Amino acid sequence: MKHIAESTVRRLSLYLRFLEDCTRRGLETISSGDLAALGGTTAAQVRKDLSFFGSFGTRGLGYSVAALAHRIREILGLEREWRVIIVGAGKIGAALAQYRGFGERRFVIVGIYDINTAAIGRTLDGVTVKDQKEMDADVARLRPDIALIAVPPEAAQLLVDRVTKAGVRGVLNFAPTPLSAAPGVALRSVDMALELEVLSWALSSK
Amino acid sequence: MKHIAESTVRRLSLYLRFLEDCTRRGLETISSGDLAALGGTTAAQVRKDLSFFGSFGTRGLGYSVAALAHRIREILGLEREWRVIIVGAGKIGAALAQYRGFGERRFVIVGIYDINTAAIGRTLDGVTVKDQKEMDADVARLRPDIALIAVPPEAAQLLVDRVTKAGVRGVLNFAPTPLSAAPGVALRSVDMALELEVLSWALSSK
Repeated sequence: MKHIAESTVRRLSLYLRFLEDCTRRGLETISSGDLAALGGTTAAQVRKDLSFFGSFGTRGLGYSVAALAHRIREILGLEREWRVIIVGAGKIGAALAQYRGFGERRFVIVGIYDINTAAIGRTLDGVTVKDQKEMDADVARLRPDIALIAVPPEAAQLLVDRVTKAGVRGVLNFAPTPLSAAPGVALRSVDMALELEVLSWALSSK
Repeated sequence: MKHIAESTVRRLSLYLRFLEDCTRRGLETISSGDLAALGGTTAAQVRKDLSFFGSFGTRGLGYSVAALAHRIREILGLEREWRVIIVGAGKIGAALAQYRGFGERRFVIVGIYDINTAAIGRTLDGVTVKDQKEMDADVARLRPDIALIAVPPEAAQLLVDRVTKAGVRGVLNFAPTPLSAAPGVALRSVDMALELEVLSWALSSK
């Protein structure tokens, strides 16, 4: 398959939401124009994004909702279950454990770890917070694919190093600090302050 | 000023973090190569990003950390204070209220609102959660610039409409649902499930 840019992947992910919404509403086909309007882009962009993956549309009828949703799930790796651990059971870790969007996408939380004795033993959405000391042995046994890092910034890099050394290949960082990971590890950051900065720029430049 | 792409703004925001880190470490100049290495991009990209805003670099000496940080803060609208309200004091709202990264950037939380009587009256990082009924009068009086939407997906669009009608011009949505806003309103979403999907795609396509 051709190389897909991350910006395309993000749009595919949005298209998938709209397609799932169509399924719930009983719609069988959708036009590139409708997908574009819902995703805040153009029909030409939608057709270009989808053309990477072969032909789905029928002229005049649009795309089959079920076929397109299936293909996008395949591309995004969503046809399988992903095992996820959460490192840090503070406010953000707890919010992540209870975030509705994850379960719907078959991201399954298999472990939550903290060093704070007040947090250890608490149950978050059915998963009991364990002592961080148990994490390495759990990673070796449970083989999680992805670690969500929700610890203070000064602890984040050490924990990324530790989970990736133990075999985790995907890291999503919520600590407000830039991190690095070994080659072969996929690392992304959700930086809420950065998102606010994009907003303040948008408001300033008007 | 020329139109700046949002992807450029995101990189500027990252450069600013590294520059602030340089300031803390007492460094006065930085090369485009160092900025690039820290930001996971190329020296050519750094020079291109910064060339939008005039000339900062001195050949052989690199960029002045203080001058470049100042200019990026200006561009991002960070030389002023931004007033922020949080709508929803559940797990995510509470995590946002206590997120360290915001205060450092002069994003000041001026109000937190909920409809849940168990949440109303709680104090989060010095701000007392108020009844959502008081929100519209508060917005008229406090004139917040930005609203963070941290409510269940089914309530999110109604609340975006309500705060923007009351005068808020920037919205950062944390509900896992696509939203729309009136023209002239800057709307961004932080979608944690989408970030996980980008990771699952990255792990799948290896």
